[in-house]
Formats: sequence, structure tokens, C-alpha cells
Amino acid sequence: MNNFTYYNPTRIEFGRDKEKTIGELLANDGVKRVLLVYGTGSIKKNGLHQRVIDSLNQSGIEYIEFGGIVSNPLLSHVYDAIDIVKSNNINVILAVGGGSVIDSAKAIAAGAVVDTDVWDFFINKATIEKALPVYTIVTLAAAASEMNGNSVITNEVTKQKYSIASVLLNPKISIVNPELMMSVTQEYLAYSAVDIIAHSIEVYFTATDHPNFQSRLVESIIKSVIETTEILIKDPTDYDARAEFAWASSQALNGLTSSGTGGGNFPNHMIEHALSALFNIAHGAGLAIVIPAWMKWYKNKNLAQFERFAKEVFGKSTADEGIAALSTWFDSIGAPVSLSAGNIPRESILDIAQNAYALGILWGMGNDYSVQSIEDILGYA
Amino acid sequence: MNNFTYYNPTRIEFGRDKEKTIGELLANDGVKRVLLVYGTGSIKKNGLHQRVIDSLNQSGIEYIEFGGIVSNPLLSHVYDAIDIVKSNNINVILAVGGGSVIDSAKAIAAGAVVDTDVWDFFINKATIEKALPVYTIVTLAAAASEMNGNSVITNEVTKQKYSIASVLLNPKISIVNPELMMSVTQEYLAYSAVDIIAHSIEVYFTATDHPNFQSRLVESIIKSVIETTEILIKDPTDYDARAEFAWASSQALNGLTSSGTGGGNFPNHMIEHALSALFNIAHGAGLAIVIPAWMKWYKNKNLAQFERFAKEVFGKSTADEGIAALSTWFDSIGAPVSLSAGNIPRESILDIAQNAYALGILWGMGNDYSVQSIEDILGYA
Repeated sequence: MNNFTYYNPTRIEFGRDKEKTIGELLANDGVKRVLLVYGTGSIKKNGLHQRVIDSLNQSGIEYIEFGGIVSNPLLSHVYDAIDIVKSNNINVILAVGGGSVIDSAKAIAAGAVVDTDVWDFFINKATIEKALPVYTIVTLAAAASEMNGNSVITNEVTKQKYSIASVLLNPKISIVNPELMMSVTQEYLAYSAVDIIAHSIEVYFTATDHPNFQSRLVESIIKSVIETTEILIKDPTDYDARAEFAWASSQALNGLTSSGTGGGNFPNHMIEHALSALFNIAHGAGLAIVIPAWMKWYKNKNLAQFERFAKEVFGKSTADEGIAALSTWFDSIGAPVSLSAGNIPRESILDIAQNAYALGILWGMGNDYSVQSIEDILGYA
Repeated sequence: MNNFTYYNPTRIEFGRDKEKTIGELLANDGVKRVLLVYGTGSIKKNGLHQRVIDSLNQSGIEYIEFGGIVSNPLLSHVYDAIDIVKSNNINVILAVGGGSVIDSAKAIAAGAVVDTDVWDFFINKATIEKALPVYTIVTLAAAASEMNGNSVITNEVTKQKYSIASVLLNPKISIVNPELMMSVTQEYLAYSAVDIIAHSIEVYFTATDHPNFQSRLVESIIKSVIETTEILIKDPTDYDARAEFAWASSQALNGLTSSGTGGGNFPNHMIEHALSALFNIAHGAGLAIVIPAWMKWYKNKNLAQFERFAKEVFGKSTADEGIAALSTWFDSIGAPVSLSAGNIPRESILDIAQNAYALGILWGMGNDYSVQSIEDILGYA
């Protein structure tokens, strides 16, 4: 097992009605005023926005609102929010939404405390040394952003979907109420399931070391996600399935499963980020397109682990059968498993590969993935 | 799934040579002087003590030593250390040792900041509201004390082995170097394995809710502990097995597996604490005596989970077969599985049951366990 640091100081408040405690939680931490960040309005329709405001008011927490964060969240929105934070002397960010909203909150938190361009952190021109505290109320289980220090933002000018990671960006407290996730469409439930499985398998397949314990944790996450997704497709209001799905999601990318594995890479995310940056496709949909193709391309580099995956997750014997079972399962829940199924034009493959390759260089994967290899992985069907 | 709070702010520094960084880690946190707590001298024989001192000196950290902590650590030692901390203006505790040393450090950390008797926290007469920061270097994987806020101390006057728990007692940083654990005797390796399995199954069997995901995490821990114990009995120097054993141990009692289960009870620990308090038996040995007996007594209260355990951990069909397999495995690694095997006299059963019952009352388990039921569980063979 490789040496590692595990440090996850995020406090999770999990369960029914927990969002009503946000004002009290902030007040207990001495917070007086927040930037309230959210998306394109669903929290206003379903009443969550009002419950949060009520809780803030009851505890005397002032707030300035910043709505409008979109999927594949945009750098321009982050810039706008940083200006508001700086000019209003705000020193805490409260994110209410899914991964895009939380990722934006983290970028705002990092950018608001420096005079330089926040994008410098994303292109490795600068290192995060401080950040405002972030609190979150999560409405979608997928990104695990509620329990890690990662943020992925799209620079719409340069067409780059890039990321930052720092424990300084770990939310101080995240509220996870599975009831808030019941209105997620079946389409986004499927994309979320794919995203969680992607977070689980990236390191599982690419790491330099595979301790059995960490592999078992990954397989536990994937089995629970498959099981609960199937329950939720039949009954979106099943609380226990929502809860198990959500808790497994947080564990998939909070540092636990990758501890001691030597790190591994995120090639599927590398390629998907290119798809999203160029075509604004949903992250989980993009991953479903990439994963089976990448698995076929990569399997012989780590055949034993692919055979293990086939056996432990799907009860199959060979690597190919395991890959086919996962692809079939993605398809069965409504996730696209090819570029054509995702309406990505065939003639874009070189652009995608070049965009992904540039990100791979930034992530230190230049030796593992050439433009040609990424084109090979994607293929077209 | 039940509502829960998960908050584990302990930073783990895991791997080879990490103990050499302790001075630097403390200095980075602004620490100037520590109470260095350790056991009965093994760290002096094996050189760890010198490496720690060297690291502290290099970083200019002053230290006052407090050695002599024993297994089933004593309240009188905690009192002595609190006096030293108070009279020397020390504000950080550094524990170097196993669970007993770390538990003592936490009790010192809680007791040194109040004018009242630290034992009041153990008998629920007072609540912990602050504590000195604790740092640890772990030499035995079993208690998970390096990654939780628990401390178990024996009051040798009243013959009570009682506990406290507070996130304020979570170590700030714990160094886990599996190499430091290689000199553990086979006997203590076995006791450690039993302890980790005990931590895993207490909530697994007694909780009010059993989310599949949390059950899978527990089974992952137990399977990895069984597998790595068998490797380590053959080769105590197998680094990867030591590492996996240690990381599984930390996960078994850090709040992760019990999240959302509604809590559950610790009946095996309740009874074992009585055995240790009265006979000073090793904690893991006491647990091995209690667990199979308790499982037979309890199985019909949660038969489905016992059948699940039999199937998932041992590939057996019935609850009884699962219990027998665990008991046989304890025996095979050299842990006693009956009072007679542990040299506990038959005529002590009532004393043990009364001591355990008193603790059960304190832990809120009075309705579940009478003195008579505890005598029934123990039996004598």
C-alpha cells in the first residue's frame, strides 16, 4: 500500500428536515452574512428556497442572493459572484443545489480572497492557499462535491472544463436530505448513477496498487448504486433507497476509496470534460458514452482488476463480460453508451481528443494518452 | 435510514517513515511544547522513542515525558498526568502507542482543562465542552482510537472500566505507520483482529436499521481483517497486509459504518469491560469470550442480519453456521472463546454480570440486558 494523507474535515448533517437547521448551524459558527448561491430556479418552485430563507431569517443571518448557476457551471458566473462578494464584504458562501452550484461556490470561495484571476488556479498557474468557508445544502447526489474539495468549472471563452482540488475548499458543513432529491428526473438519476460509478472505477482500474479492502469499498458503492437506482426508477419517492444512494455517492469521491492506492488517474473524466466543454452534454451522459469504450481499450493494462470487477459486481467470469454488463446496465437505465446515442457528430472526434489531451497534460497524464489514443477510445457507433 | 451527523476531522498521515514528520507537523500547527505519553517501554527498545525525540528536537518542540501507561489504562495514571500538564503549562498531548496510550491521552486532554474530576465525564456527571489537542503515533491497530473521539479508562478503585466520547477528543493528526506494528506478538495480533471485528458487528447486529451499503462496508472490513490476519500469522512482516489491517481497523470505529443505522448498542463491549475491570484480561481476549456466546443468545432478535453475516462473511447458510464459523476462526488464531479458556473462574459470573449491568445502565441499555440475561449469555464452558 502506498503512503497517503486522509483528511476530510467536512461535517455531514444527513436526513429529513436538516435544511431547516442551516440558520442555526451558521449562527453556531459565528456567521453573520452569506452569499446564497443556487441554480436556475427549481429550489424556488419546490419551496426549498423559502425554507432556507426562513431558517436564515430566524437565526438573524443576512444574505445576498446569487442564482442562475447552470449545469457545467460557467467561469463568467463565478467572476460575477466574486465581484459581489468583494464589494459587499461577504465572508461565507452558502450553496444550495447540486454539484454545479457547490463547485461554483468553491471557486467563488477561492477567488474572493485573492486579487489575481481565479482561473489561474485551474490552469496550475497559482496554488490555493486560503478560501472563504463554504456551507452546502445538496439537492443532487452525484458529484460528491458536498464532501470533497474539488470544483470543476467551464471557461466558456477557451472551451476548457477544468478543475481545482484543495482541502481548503471542503465544505465546513454539508446538509444532505434525501427528500430534496426525490424530484430528480429519471434521466438525471441515471446520469447521477453513472457519475458515482465513474468516480468509483477511475482509481479502481488505474491505480498502481489495489488493496483488497479499498477494492471491496468500491464494489460496495457500485453494488449499492445499481441496487438503489433500480428501486428509484420504479419508485422515485423511496426514502431509504435515496438515502443509501446519496451516502454511497459521498463516499465515492471523498478520499476514502483511493487511500493507499497510489492515486490513479481520471481518464474517463478527462475525455468527458472535453465532451461537456464542446457540446454542453450532461456530465453523467458524457461519462456513460466514454466508460465502456475506455474499459475495452484499457482492460489489458490491468486484466486482473477487470476480471475482479466482472466477478464481484456482476457475477461474471471475464473482463469482457463485466464491461458488457456495465454497458448494458447504463443503457437499461437510459444513459447513452456511444457518441451517436449522445448526438455527438462523428467529425468532432479529433476536436474532442485534442481538448481532452490538453487536460490530460495538465493532469499529468500526457504519457498515458495521446490524441490518437483518445480518438481510438472514442471510436464512433 | 435514520438521520445522522458524520464528522471526523482527524487527519491521518499513513505510511512508512511518517513518524519522522511529527515534529514538523506539530510545528506547522504552531505547537511549542507537548506532554509525550507512552506505555511501558517497548517504544524505547525498538527505537521509536528516539526517532520521535529526534523529530521533536529538530523542530524545536519541547516535551515532558509521561511513560508507564498500561493495558486497560488506569485512572490514577490519568490523574498524575493531568497534574503534570497543569503545573507545566502544557497545552498539547502527543500519544505514542496503542489504544491504551491514546485513550489515556484523550482523558488527560479532557481533564487538564477543567477544575473538576475527569472521572465525572465517564459517569455522565459532566459533559466535555473543551479539550487540549491530541496528536498520536499509533503502534497497534485495534482500538481505532487514532480516528475517533472515544476513550476507555479503568477506575481501579471502583473496578469500573468506563468510557467517554466526544468529537473534541478526535486526534488532530494521527500517524499510522504499519511498520511500527510488525513487532506485535501473534497473541496481540489475534486480540486486535477480534477487537476490530467486535467494533464492526456491534452496530451491524443491534442497529434499528440496516442499509445494505453500511452492511457491505462492515462485511468488507471483516473480510479484510480475516484475510490479512491469516497472512500476518504466517509472515508478521508483510507490509501490505499490516497496512490493510490497520486501515480497516480505523474504519471500523470512526463513525462511517454506523451512519444512518440508528446507532445500535455495544453489548459485547459492555460485558467485556466487566471482564477487564475485574480480571484485567486483554480487551480482545475478553471480546472473543463474549462474542460467540452473545451471538447465540441474540441471534433470534435479528435473524435476517445473522443469516446475512453467515452468507456474506463465511459463505454459510444459517445463522448458527455463521456463529460457529466465527467462533472457530477466533479459536484458530489463538483467541479464547469461553470463560474457562480465559481462566475466568466460574463463581465470578454474578459479579461480572452485575458489573456489566451497571455499565449497561449508564449506556442506556438497562431495558435490554438484565443481570440474569448477562449471566445467561456468559454461561460457563
